[in-house]
Amino acid sequence: MQQLAAPLWKTALDKALATYPKQTVVQLASLDPSASIPHVRSLVFREFMTTSDPSQPLILSTTDVRTPKTAQMIANPNVQIAWYIQGTQEQYRIAGKAHIVPAPGDLRKHFMHTISALGLASDYDWEAKRVEAFKKMSPQMKASWCRPVPGSKLEGGQDEAKKWPTELQEPKPGDAEAQRLWDLSLSNFALLIVNPTDVDFVELAPVPNRRTRFWRAADGWHEEALVP
Amino acid sequence: MQQLAAPLWKTALDKALATYPKQTVVQLASLDPSASIPHVRSLVFREFMTTSDPSQPLILSTTDVRTPKTAQMIANPNVQIAWYIQGTQEQYRIAGKAHIVPAPGDLRKHFMHTISALGLASDYDWEAKRVEAFKKMSPQMKASWCRPVPGSKLEGGQDEAKKWPTELQEPKPGDAEAQRLWDLSLSNFALLIVNPTDVDFVELAPVPNRRTRFWRAADGWHEEALVP
Repeated sequence: MQQLAAPLWKTALDKALATYPKQTVVQLASLDPSASIPHVRSLVFREFMTTSDPSQPLILSTTDVRTPKTAQMIANPNVQIAWYIQGTQEQYRIAGKAHIVPAPGDLRKHFMHTISALGLASDYDWEAKRVEAFKKMSPQMKASWCRPVPGSKLEGGQDEAKKWPTELQEPKPGDAEAQRLWDLSLSNFALLIVNPTDVDFVELAPVPNRRTRFWRAADGWHEEALVP
Repeated sequence: MQQLAAPLWKTALDKALATYPKQTVVQLASLDPSASIPHVRSLVFREFMTTSDPSQPLILSTTDVRTPKTAQMIANPNVQIAWYIQGTQEQYRIAGKAHIVPAPGDLRKHFMHTISALGLASDYDWEAKRVEAFKKMSPQMKASWCRPVPGSKLEGGQDEAKKWPTELQEPKPGDAEAQRLWDLSLSNFALLIVNPTDVDFVELAPVPNRRTRFWRAADGWHEEALVP
């Protein structure tokens, strides 16, 4: 059952997304190893990045590098995504390793050694990819990354929050304040990449329901039918 | 900011569910302690169970007791629920301890010592609650609990799966086969209860967004405004 091409779960997910392109809110679980407590939050799936090896599709999302999940993923890169596509009644549970691509600097150096495992050329331009992803974000989302640290105490209350910028547009030449906010937001913006290794795919529409486990081995993806 | 009554996050969630009663699919993360790997899957929220202490609402869901999450929660009861209500653009992240109420027998004995912490009368009739919840399930869901072990290899393939019952109705007197299937399904059916201790509530509709942390202490729920 070896597959040299893209795995069947990705073909199914591509098809589901072609029909329901807005069903891109996923839940990502990570682990706080210091307390042995699982965490889970909603994220927006942005795209599949394709590597030179089509059997290694990478899930691209984004984050504020200051959120607790970044620290959690440094300590333990094991994550799982639950992705329920209501339109097709399909659930994809995607386990893999998480990788973070923050702004250039010391933190990025910390992360980049893990990125070499992703099947991309060693000179892949991660900074260009990061900036491209940032530019695709809505003006409202861009403004979210120049707030104080997410999850920290709101000093000054909602009155203080009303002073935050609500939208960031690409700065016009000479607009120093707009440039400062843009640079600040971009400095907190990070790519979040999940490299899938095990996928549990449940189809709830057919009777009887179907469930398939996919896992990646050295020779490509394998699959096995499971009891739903 | 002490609250002696139901916590404000529950009031907000009740209100959201009154408007969007179908948005009850939640994602529950648990931990596989043997491998330090987080797991997450979709579940259906069934109801809030109220205890004698209104500050301690319990989240009721259900499961097949044979699924891996049951073993995960024995080993580590810490869980977190991510609940995104699309209609209101609210995300509730609910952390707490999970409790399982399986069929009577040795496994239940193993679990019941944890249940005493739930703020219910010591003679609370858990079996009546379990059977009541089972009866509320759809005939299709009832049939799902008399399949082979969920997540095990599908022996015999889809042809075998086509022999599984697709619906279970309450058995008529004297229908021995219907009674056998009903009893089998009920024996695998378990309540899954989460006792919330910490809730991270994000409101994405207002500008600026709002985020509030709630946590339960000995004197009730406390809250603090956070940076979103």
